[in-house]
Amino acid sequence: VSTTVAITLSYRGTAYAGWQRQANAPTVQQAVEEALARLCGESVRVVGAGRTDAGVHARGQVASCALARALPERSLVHGLDHHLPADVRALAAAVMPPGFDARRCAAAKEYRYRLVRAEVLSPLDAPAAVRAPRGLELAPLRDATARLVGRHDFAAFALAGGSHASSVRTVHLAEWIELGPRLVLRVVGDGFLRGMVRSLVGTLLEVGVGRRTPEAFARLLGGGARCDAGPTAPPEGLVLERVAYPAPWAAAGAGEVDLAAPVDPATLW
Amino acid sequence: VSTTVAITLSYRGTAYAGWQRQANAPTVQQAVEEALARLCGESVRVVGAGRTDAGVHARGQVASCALARALPERSLVHGLDHHLPADVRALAAAVMPPGFDARRCAAAKEYRYRLVRAEVLSPLDAPAAVRAPRGLELAPLRDATARLVGRHDFAAFALAGGSHASSVRTVHLAEWIELGPRLVLRVVGDGFLRGMVRSLVGTLLEVGVGRRTPEAFARLLGGGARCDAGPTAPPEGLVLERVAYPAPWAAAGAGEVDLAAPVDPATLW
Repeated sequence: VSTTVAITLSYRGTAYAGWQRQANAPTVQQAVEEALARLCGESVRVVGAGRTDAGVHARGQVASCALARALPERSLVHGLDHHLPADVRALAAAVMPPGFDARRCAAAKEYRYRLVRAEVLSPLDAPAAVRAPRGLELAPLRDATARLVGRHDFAAFALAGGSHASSVRTVHLAEWIELGPRLVLRVVGDGFLRGMVRSLVGTLLEVGVGRRTPEAFARLLGGGARCDAGPTAPPEGLVLERVAYPAPWAAAGAGEVDLAAPVDPATLW
Repeated sequence: VSTTVAITLSYRGTAYAGWQRQANAPTVQQAVEEALARLCGESVRVVGAGRTDAGVHARGQVASCALARALPERSLVHGLDHHLPADVRALAAAVMPPGFDARRCAAAKEYRYRLVRAEVLSPLDAPAAVRAPRGLELAPLRDATARLVGRHDFAAFALAGGSHASSVRTVHLAEWIELGPRLVLRVVGDGFLRGMVRSLVGTLLEVGVGRRTPEAFARLLGGGARCDAGPTAPPEGLVLERVAYPAPWAAAGAGEVDLAAPVDPATLW
């Protein structure tokens, strides 16, 4: 009999080839599995709610695994952090009812993309933000972004290499919040294709600088090829912020419930 | 004839033994002087407004120097950034009237200290924040902090090794701002002794957890020995945010003017 646990993770993705294990490159999944193996003395496979790409960060990634030997939740968090590299941290852990799978049970995820309007980016912002393009205008950017909300075919925004049968996804919330010279995109959806948020950001920024109209952007939401959309925005601006689970799982301590609720702007950066 | 320039710098201090040049350790001053030497082909001495300690960061350090060959301001910024390491950036440059000295002309500086109430700190916050002590209460913390404002003898908060004739300084503003689980101390003053902000934070946090009363804290502001005050808070939470210069220098493009004005809380992190 094994115990299923949910682990909330935060990481700086700069040094990793993304979440998912690869043969020849360091990944966050591998770092977590190795830390669990050292802590628990068993070989553990971990499932992450979001398969973040190379260089993408997380504040609230959720991972699940089955442990033969259960540890108290606090011991699991502090034990893991003892064995994890400094750029990956377990923030919380919860023992879950059997059947919990961080990826399959996830109901929604929130990603944020951070821009700074500045000639030069401060090294204090640079790990998790990028410079806004010159001449970026908020009105068209917001016009196009609002059209994301709803059920659409995001085929034009999917990088090759994803493993999804369908490219239809539902976006619950998409908004840019202005914090002085900073701009944060919040996007909440039931699921995201590989590279989808960064392709959306790259294309939305083309609208923001006048190279594409909001209407032309909206037409891409009916399907299309990747070459119809704009460039893929750099990974360092993107953070997987939170993962939401339906009430029974959330009540047991995994993730959050209502991602579309308003957020205090002072906590967005 | 040389040209005096003011350069606004931001750096992540983690890898540096502070601002000021040392014989056997890398410093930010040395990094800036070496980049200037490579860019301008001359040996340049740079003066920084604040001599930040080892591990302390800056968003708006101001440095001055005299250049035999003047460069256009944008070329100076981008040329410096080409030669600087990634954790130090020139954000702006301005040609100043003769006589400008970033340290001697500075009228006030703002430092911020950042705490997070969390069991574990996210690696995205960790470079420039520290965990708040358990049981920290805002009411006594704010009571003690408000007493800082005014002209006091900060001898009890000065680390050895400073070069100041007097330990009397004036604090114009000192306040903690709560941003969800985050806490930011803003402190604006006409000058700061070596290690002063971190000693103040360490002692204020003792008040916040009930180990010292606001009244006992206030008594330290009449002078005292370093051993009368609390521990020195870790450097990674501290950032030199801005430097203010009197109107003629500020008008020429160096720093800011009114540091005590209210700041949008959404821009504090």
